Amino acid sequence: MKILLFGSTGSIGRTSLEVIKRDRDLKVLGLCTYRNTNLLLKQIKEFMPKYICVIDKKEGLDFKKYIPKNCKFFYGESGLEEFCTLKSDISIMGISGISCLKPLIKNIPYTRRVALANKESIVIAGDFVFKEALKYNTEIIPVDSEINALFQLLKKFNCNDFNRIYITASGGALFDYKISDLKNVTLKKVLSHPTWNMGKRITIDSSTLVNKAFEVIEAHYYFNIPFEKIDIVIHRESKIHALLELKDNTIFACVYDNNMSIPIGFSIYYPKLFLSKNRIDFKNKFYFSFQPLDRKTFPLFYLILDAKKRDDNSLVLLNAWDEIAIDYFLNKKINFLGIHRALNYIFKNYPKGKIEKLEDIFYWDNWARVKAKEYLERLC
Amino acid sequence: MKILLFGSTGSIGRTSLEVIKRDRDLKVLGLCTYRNTNLLLKQIKEFMPKYICVIDKKEGLDFKKYIPKNCKFFYGESGLEEFCTLKSDISIMGISGISCLKPLIKNIPYTRRVALANKESIVIAGDFVFKEALKYNTEIIPVDSEINALFQLLKKFNCNDFNRIYITASGGALFDYKISDLKNVTLKKVLSHPTWNMGKRITIDSSTLVNKAFEVIEAHYYFNIPFEKIDIVIHRESKIHALLELKDNTIFACVYDNNMSIPIGFSIYYPKLFLSKNRIDFKNKFYFSFQPLDRKTFPLFYLILDAKKRDDNSLVLLNAWDEIAIDYFLNKKINFLGIHRALNYIFKNYPKGKIEKLEDIFYWDNWARVKAKEYLERLC
Repeated sequence: MKILLFGSTGSIGRTSLEVIKRDRDLKVLGLCTYRNTNLLLKQIKEFMPKYICVIDKKEGLDFKKYIPKNCKFFYGESGLEEFCTLKSDISIMGISGISCLKPLIKNIPYTRRVALANKESIVIAGDFVFKEALKYNTEIIPVDSEINALFQLLKKFNCNDFNRIYITASGGALFDYKISDLKNVTLKKVLSHPTWNMGKRITIDSSTLVNKAFEVIEAHYYFNIPFEKIDIVIHRESKIHALLELKDNTIFACVYDNNMSIPIGFSIYYPKLFLSKNRIDFKNKFYFSFQPLDRKTFPLFYLILDAKKRDDNSLVLLNAWDEIAIDYFLNKKINFLGIHRALNYIFKNYPKGKIEKLEDIFYWDNWARVKAKEYLERLC
Repeated sequence: MKILLFGSTGSIGRTSLEVIKRDRDLKVLGLCTYRNTNLLLKQIKEFMPKYICVIDKKEGLDFKKYIPKNCKFFYGESGLEEFCTLKSDISIMGISGISCLKPLIKNIPYTRRVALANKESIVIAGDFVFKEALKYNTEIIPVDSEINALFQLLKKFNCNDFNRIYITASGGALFDYKISDLKNVTLKKVLSHPTWNMGKRITIDSSTLVNKAFEVIEAHYYFNIPFEKIDIVIHRESKIHALLELKDNTIFACVYDNNMSIPIGFSIYYPKLFLSKNRIDFKNKFYFSFQPLDRKTFPLFYLILDAKKRDDNSLVLLNAWDEIAIDYFLNKKINFLGIHRALNYIFKNYPKGKIEKLEDIFYWDNWARVKAKEYLERLC
């Protein structure tokens, strides 16, 4: 099985390589990173891919000299486009943010299966992505644990006849805070996710529950579930990833250890089973807690879902502003509530636009990034 | 759908009638009770069955005059045998103890489906029961919630490729007691099951975990699962009834409210869904706890499974002694540990015998009842 790995040096990429190296039948066809060439070099030595791509042009130029002779090297945006046309059995999409959308769309015709860890491309462009996948008969398997768990529940039960699905939410790093306490919360605190070790943006999105709103939208696109049938339940332990309530009120829960190797392995091996090393051991004493989501503490969760309802460019703008605001917070230029302020601002003050083609998304995404920076500079 | 209800005045019978009366398409063809004719009379007036059976001969003779003219009445052992040959779509077997075995075997040829709430007939005579069911192409659907949950998990996943199954155990009324505290425990305390409202014998069997050992044996027979793949986990809340751990360590849990109408409804409607009124509402705050079984507190659990391994008449004897000892305890003739003493005694001092045909079971069951009474009278 030839695997193309997009975002190889990120959290998903690194875990994917851990899974791949356990099985001789899985071959890394190509590795692609944005610009972490130090780690990329180590990965090249270990996995000996035939194709290598560095998306950042400058970094790519500098890195060229390290490429082994029998490898083909791509760099920059045009290099990435070429890299996307390599034929693979599975493409693992571990690029974070909306930057995943272009390579995803470009790559769909050339792979048999996408193991998709990226949320934004579905949240913002779900219709386009699934249309493309249908056109080229490419499977898209969700890696995101909650959506992956839903995939397992819905596929295995082969069931459309349900009352509702529940997506679980750990509640993130700030669950026990009140909104009034959030002004001076430190970056370190926000990045200390209680149950998952993930990339920085997703960890911060988890603390605002923007991430969870994205998952609701993902579930809608992946499985064609109306929003009124999708519920959230706070489950601090992150062991149950999703629940399916049938018409008879019987609930089936999908439970696995909170280690991303499991859904990544699932996405590679499905319909075969990935032999994960992580088990939940019932020889220990433990509990699973459940509580409803408190509307007041997580206003951005509802903001994102409200934006989705507008069915225009609103969600594209919010996603871009969220990404930029998080960058500013990560660079300690704004405080945590600055993210809230920025998203509330653009939610209320935005120029309406229609999203009819993929280019509209890129147009509004670019526009939003410029405007977000202008706004955030004033906040600094 | 014509339903024959065995044990109509017991806990399972009464709940079954609650389910049946919600659906005009479900017709009570016949009602059968051991001797609770007061309640039976009310049930006859409400459900107007064509056939009525009172198993106790004396009680039956007395009751004869109350039978409506358009009804056929059966009583005594021979009456029960005739009642068993009535053709039905579903037979609900709610008779408790080994007395269910004969009517079950007699009835299998004449019904399309048995909704089986009785454990003992499977635990003691699983091979005979399933052979008969196969011969007459009669479905047997388990009503017992844990086994019912396993049925749902294994059927819907259509999966033989699992690491293990877990049967959950509430731990019963005496879970927080030490074995040394049990001598003077009151009947009232033993009957106060934390989560289920059930018949008396099963409630007491829950407090010793004999009931749970029976479920392990049931799971073995129903689904052909080797004993080493069946685990127990203490789950005090009785909302998760069973869990299935696949080869990839992903676990699927079957969750429903601890109300017997749900598995009874399931057994009637399957593969259609029973529209239960009981929901687990995630708008509330709650938790599910898990802990391993403590070997020392529940010696009878292991005793029963050890008896099963002997593959002789041992389990027949233990079941009979358990039933008789519980009668003595219910009549306050012995204390709670008397049940332990009796079962330990017969486990150690029993005449080995082979179970080759159904008659062997009845022979050893009768023998055991006589001997149990002799032993228990001395204990009084």
